[in-house]
Amino acid sequence: MEKAIVLFSGGLDSTTCLAIAKDQGFEVFAMSFAYGQRHSVELTAAKRIIAKMPVAQHRVVTIDLAAFGGSSLTSNLKVPKNRSSANDHDDIPNTYVPARNTIFLSFALGWTEVLGARDIFIGVNALDYSGYPDCRPEYIRAYEAMANLATKAQIEGNRLTIHTPLISMTKAQIIRTGHVLGVDFSLTHSCYDPSPQGLACGACDSCLLRKKGFEQAGISDVTIYI
Amino acid sequence: MEKAIVLFSGGLDSTTCLAIAKDQGFEVFAMSFAYGQRHSVELTAAKRIIAKMPVAQHRVVTIDLAAFGGSSLTSNLKVPKNRSSANDHDDIPNTYVPARNTIFLSFALGWTEVLGARDIFIGVNALDYSGYPDCRPEYIRAYEAMANLATKAQIEGNRLTIHTPLISMTKAQIIRTGHVLGVDFSLTHSCYDPSPQGLACGACDSCLLRKKGFEQAGISDVTIYI
Repeated sequence: MEKAIVLFSGGLDSTTCLAIAKDQGFEVFAMSFAYGQRHSVELTAAKRIIAKMPVAQHRVVTIDLAAFGGSSLTSNLKVPKNRSSANDHDDIPNTYVPARNTIFLSFALGWTEVLGARDIFIGVNALDYSGYPDCRPEYIRAYEAMANLATKAQIEGNRLTIHTPLISMTKAQIIRTGHVLGVDFSLTHSCYDPSPQGLACGACDSCLLRKKGFEQAGISDVTIYI
Repeated sequence: MEKAIVLFSGGLDSTTCLAIAKDQGFEVFAMSFAYGQRHSVELTAAKRIIAKMPVAQHRVVTIDLAAFGGSSLTSNLKVPKNRSSANDHDDIPNTYVPARNTIFLSFALGWTEVLGARDIFIGVNALDYSGYPDCRPEYIRAYEAMANLATKAQIEGNRLTIHTPLISMTKAQIIRTGHVLGVDFSLTHSCYDPSPQGLACGACDSCLLRKKGFEQAGISDVTIYI
């Protein structure tokens, strides 16, 4: 079995991405990050999901992105609510975290080399998303090109592939795909600004995209919104 | 004054790189990493150097690369000593740390965006070095291309440059350059495998390259070797 790293937040997208990697026959090494996110409840979700979808290893890496600030996800900036278009690509909202996917992928890259793996899965999506630059196909291709020059394993001929199975799916298609693969969406967490009890706000971009996705997929949304 | 991030380990190369950035008129934000390195004495050196070469800010980021292993710098693998050629590029030694520069540059990238900076300095060298893939010009170019697609600042037209002023210098040229710029090399630390008291071993690649560099530069080496 080939080993693959799956970047795994405990959200709807990365859980579907993990299910796809398993379905493709990879031995999965899941990697989550405690990065100072205000919705760290997603890490509790991640652990709950792994308990039902076993992987070879699940590692939670602690890094301090809150030290930089610059994002409402890691500081006390206000998370935007009820935006008219939650996937408005021209106006990147302050939920964007500087260099987040670049940092996550770089840790995954280090782990592939130690494990002897050649595959990384990341659940980015460039359709029903908030216009984050590090979710776009051209960024992923550039990252892959860089990664293939970056490490000892790669210059020894062990070519690395970054898989983005969700990149051109709508949220509804992601939900249908996860559904077919048996993902229990009730365990996943999407909200950027949950209540102290961990309940979804129902109004941030992430909640809006999730709601619309379930509606369009014709699958009932079991998420409890405040 | 333009702001620049300088990746700064407290070694001979990155200290010279920092002096160059200051000399070029940048307002310097220095970034060091506590990454589980066995030679963490370099961080003490970094602080000592900053006390003499003031910068706008010096940040030490803690990240756990030791959790991956795969390197003699972050595990109990043996650091190779007295290699016949300390800059043998065909045989990358186990002092290589998987994805290290990629991870460091990614944190610097996040910081540039929050600071509104467009310049990162990294003291990599592809001549008197140990063949690490993430020190080569083609890697740096690929990283810069990726970075310019990765962030909100960049897609808004704020083009990022990665400066590698040392990349094609010999160690002797680096030492001469630092000397002219007033670097106090007695404060810098290079050894991969220092004694418990922090003294240089004199036999690892890094010590061998340092010794040879001072010799060829015709500048006396004030380093105390065991």
